[in-house]
Amino acid sequence: MNKLRIAMAQINLTVGDLAGNSKKIVSYARDAACLGADLVIFPELSTTGYPPEDLLLRPSFVEDNLKHINAIARKIKDIAAIVGFVDKKTGIYNAAALIKDGEIRDVYHKMYLPNYGVFDEQRYFQGGTTPLNFTLNNVTIGIGICEDIWYPEGPARLQSLAGASVICNINASPYHAGKLWIREEMLKTRAMDNGVIIAYNNAVGGQDELIFDGQGMIISENGATLERGGAFVEDLVAADLDIGAALSPRMRGAGKTGVRSKAAPQAVRHIDLGAGRQAKKPELPKRNVQALPVIDEMLRALILGVRDYARKNKFTHAVVGLSGGIDSSVVAALAGLAVGRKNITGVFMPSRYTARQSRKDAEALARNLGVRLMTIPIENAFSSYLSTLKQAFKGCKTDVTEENLQARIRGNILMALSNKFGWLVLTTGNKSELSVGYATLYGDMAGGFSAIKDVPKTTVYALAKRINEMAGKAVIPEAVFTKAPTAELRPNQTDQDALPPYDALDGILKAYIEEDKGVSEICKMGHARAIVKKVIEMVDSSEYKRRQSPPGIKITPRAFGKDRRMPITNQYKNGLRKK
Amino acid sequence: MNKLRIAMAQINLTVGDLAGNSKKIVSYARDAACLGADLVIFPELSTTGYPPEDLLLRPSFVEDNLKHINAIARKIKDIAAIVGFVDKKTGIYNAAALIKDGEIRDVYHKMYLPNYGVFDEQRYFQGGTTPLNFTLNNVTIGIGICEDIWYPEGPARLQSLAGASVICNINASPYHAGKLWIREEMLKTRAMDNGVIIAYNNAVGGQDELIFDGQGMIISENGATLERGGAFVEDLVAADLDIGAALSPRMRGAGKTGVRSKAAPQAVRHIDLGAGRQAKKPELPKRNVQALPVIDEMLRALILGVRDYARKNKFTHAVVGLSGGIDSSVVAALAGLAVGRKNITGVFMPSRYTARQSRKDAEALARNLGVRLMTIPIENAFSSYLSTLKQAFKGCKTDVTEENLQARIRGNILMALSNKFGWLVLTTGNKSELSVGYATLYGDMAGGFSAIKDVPKTTVYALAKRINEMAGKAVIPEAVFTKAPTAELRPNQTDQDALPPYDALDGILKAYIEEDKGVSEICKMGHARAIVKKVIEMVDSSEYKRRQSPPGIKITPRAFGKDRRMPITNQYKNGLRKK
Repeated sequence: MNKLRIAMAQINLTVGDLAGNSKKIVSYARDAACLGADLVIFPELSTTGYPPEDLLLRPSFVEDNLKHINAIARKIKDIAAIVGFVDKKTGIYNAAALIKDGEIRDVYHKMYLPNYGVFDEQRYFQGGTTPLNFTLNNVTIGIGICEDIWYPEGPARLQSLAGASVICNINASPYHAGKLWIREEMLKTRAMDNGVIIAYNNAVGGQDELIFDGQGMIISENGATLERGGAFVEDLVAADLDIGAALSPRMRGAGKTGVRSKAAPQAVRHIDLGAGRQAKKPELPKRNVQALPVIDEMLRALILGVRDYARKNKFTHAVVGLSGGIDSSVVAALAGLAVGRKNITGVFMPSRYTARQSRKDAEALARNLGVRLMTIPIENAFSSYLSTLKQAFKGCKTDVTEENLQARIRGNILMALSNKFGWLVLTTGNKSELSVGYATLYGDMAGGFSAIKDVPKTTVYALAKRINEMAGKAVIPEAVFTKAPTAELRPNQTDQDALPPYDALDGILKAYIEEDKGVSEICKMGHARAIVKKVIEMVDSSEYKRRQSPPGIKITPRAFGKDRRMPITNQYKNGLRKK
Repeated sequence: MNKLRIAMAQINLTVGDLAGNSKKIVSYARDAACLGADLVIFPELSTTGYPPEDLLLRPSFVEDNLKHINAIARKIKDIAAIVGFVDKKTGIYNAAALIKDGEIRDVYHKMYLPNYGVFDEQRYFQGGTTPLNFTLNNVTIGIGICEDIWYPEGPARLQSLAGASVICNINASPYHAGKLWIREEMLKTRAMDNGVIIAYNNAVGGQDELIFDGQGMIISENGATLERGGAFVEDLVAADLDIGAALSPRMRGAGKTGVRSKAAPQAVRHIDLGAGRQAKKPELPKRNVQALPVIDEMLRALILGVRDYARKNKFTHAVVGLSGGIDSSVVAALAGLAVGRKNITGVFMPSRYTARQSRKDAEALARNLGVRLMTIPIENAFSSYLSTLKQAFKGCKTDVTEENLQARIRGNILMALSNKFGWLVLTTGNKSELSVGYATLYGDMAGGFSAIKDVPKTTVYALAKRINEMAGKAVIPEAVFTKAPTAELRPNQTDQDALPPYDALDGILKAYIEEDKGVSEICKMGHARAIVKKVIEMVDSSEYKRRQSPPGIKITPRAFGKDRRMPITNQYKNGLRKK
């Protein structure tokens, strides 16, 4: 009965940092060898980080990545390893190097290239044509990269029929809430259908709008989750796989979907790596990683996203405009958890319309979080704009112009602090507002990173509640939860003057933006046609604002950013009459 | 000897405006019938406009497009027509409807789907598998869509071997300077290799960052350009094709690349449409459209881009900040040409650093263009920010913060005018500045549309010169050409304090951004390594600014926008040492 000790290095890589990524790969390979692993696997495109986007069009970048994978191979001598990199032939490939004894012994080219959602892989890569199996210590193992495992008829099927007992699938799979469950169900199906163990390793970390959540899994041939990688943290998951047990269901007649006759095992390339070098097998530490509740997942995703954007872009300090409202409170709390409360400055910028309660709440929040609070009133700047524009606006009524001016003064102040002190400005807009354009371009939308850009308002409240629960006290003051949300840009304004109640709004937005539902379908969900029409018109007419918004963290199946590519110039009326 | 009278409707469509696009298609079909044409062909994706982007993910949008193509077909009874639309089977297809006698007689599915540069077609469409020929008045005609014609072994080869004398290729091919020549050379090769006449019809008009330039062509089987569609204007090109002449070279043995034996003519679907209905053939007006010099092409592209962005987004008036410099002068001139001088307001916003000459030049420009000029000094607002931030900035030196504040006050003033009066703010930054980040986010970068975003500084001067030549007088004052460019944000500042001379800079930028050259290749072009290093570092570190810039008109092979997708978080150092 063969055993294989496998290690999955769930590491946080940085796009473009070939030297740093290489160093980390080699170091984790050493750690895995110390754990007695026969094989260590790394994430997809480990050398370059994921996604390298148009860096891939630069030949010198691809060449540098090749130099690094070769250098990595030379340094990994005491363990077999699978490392993602960019291969170059007549085109370039999303590839996995199979390394042993300081050499690249073979290379697998990803066969399924995702080109939907946030993915553009067909923009860059040629698709591979041949699955690859290798034998190590008499165990046959198949290599797959990310998308490859999502297709029932994909390479894993052929690899299993050609004798693989284990499929190593390496990933850079972006997070959204609910994705872990989808992945796990898919992996169980794939493992059971093919009678193989699947070692699914994922990257971890933030890259612009994407969060890689880690949460790798080892799934047994009968669909049991044997081991999990930590959520949103680096991890080295080592496990002993019982290969004999894996093979037995297959001997009883696996291949449940019954295509064995169609699949030609000889289409799978095979390489024999001989014996591993890990004679000594120290006992592995017990692990007990559990899947998180969704709210905690989202919280961890947002914290990691802010932390990595700051860290990887060399920011040590962040600044948040605090209004006393729920959004800025949550962003400040997240920021504190991400980069440390000492590295956060809150700025309260009252105007003539700011309520006393807002100041109280902003001050309480800053005190509770232990972050520095600056107060910079905008009244002088606002008056000076009004007098500067008095002549130009002669005879005009006060309108949204004056509201936007206030928001833009605040944006300018935060940017001035950013310019002077090198701070990262975190914007505080949520997905609901950004969807309907209830935000000021160059105003509250001004900043480097948009922490809750993909968080619906109703979820912002849920996160706030969870933050307080975890802190064991009302870090975010109770009043912030109970008062009516308001932009405070004119007397007695509340969000609900302009918008439907957030519960209804978020339902409509999800249906329209994430699920591509049409007007009549959304109405059938129980929303009034007039409301649906208004919301959709607001969403459509705000595309120009979103185009200029800072990047922010994706936590839903469809975020604003790479995920959703809408024309600004767009006269489609969704079956609604033109106004 | 068979003759075919063909008409190419080179029309300006609007993305999403299914009703408006349909109306225009039907109207042009009638005009073509009046000209006695047997067949009229329209651009790619005529029903939806191009590119519809993620509207395509919305099932209700695709359904609406189907309703419209069916309605279009019912209204086109007296001429055969090829109309681009989105077809839906198990997936969706970039398709062409072959219409005759009020019915869709057959549908062709685009076989080659571009997924590079600005194109994302594999994100949406399934690829077709079968070329389509049809016979009309005993002439066999093949249908192709855009990318299909770019491949020597593409459908046109099979269609010709299966008997086509004419290939109708329908396009939405975006403009860049030099592309007409590339297209024409390719079409000549394709026509001669296959012994066919090619009718290449293109869309015209602006759609966000893309300009469709029209400039359709009819290319004879021996590579002569028989007819051209106008440049950057709607046009209805009608021509009589002499089919007998086209067939004769093929009878002498065409198929120059000699793959006749490999290609299976039966793989081409064929439909017979019988006789056309155009018995009366009025004499066609003589046409004499010539290709334009490149500088004129660029000028026309920019004018059309601004005009269509304004028109299709319902702006009737545009506002431009005038500094007295070359960039804002050119943008104001373009804007006047695009939407009419009465619909332009220039705003001069002097500060304590503004030279007397700047005011003189801005005033002269406005006078020469005949546009309204408002003068709104920023001194009050600037002082008020400085005093507002005095406490926060205590002990700090004056730096780029104060420069950015001035630019942002100007941005805010323009946006306030936009908000109050519904004007479109045209930003004035050029590609050279935007490349190296020599621009203020939310300052001079604030606005709805960025007219010269893809125009290198040296080309801005060339455009300015051409604008004056065409006007027959120095509309843009001579002084604007001769004085040193400056942002006027601190005393005695000039652009060249921070940047290499523009001639050198533009050369480096083209090599790095448009041609993906590496450091050593660029140095080999004759640039000093220190300069190359500095420029590249500036380009790389400005990605976050460009991500938040407004859309602007693509005129080079690679523009900032959909065309270039770079990570913000990116530690690739191009082989340069880290600072």
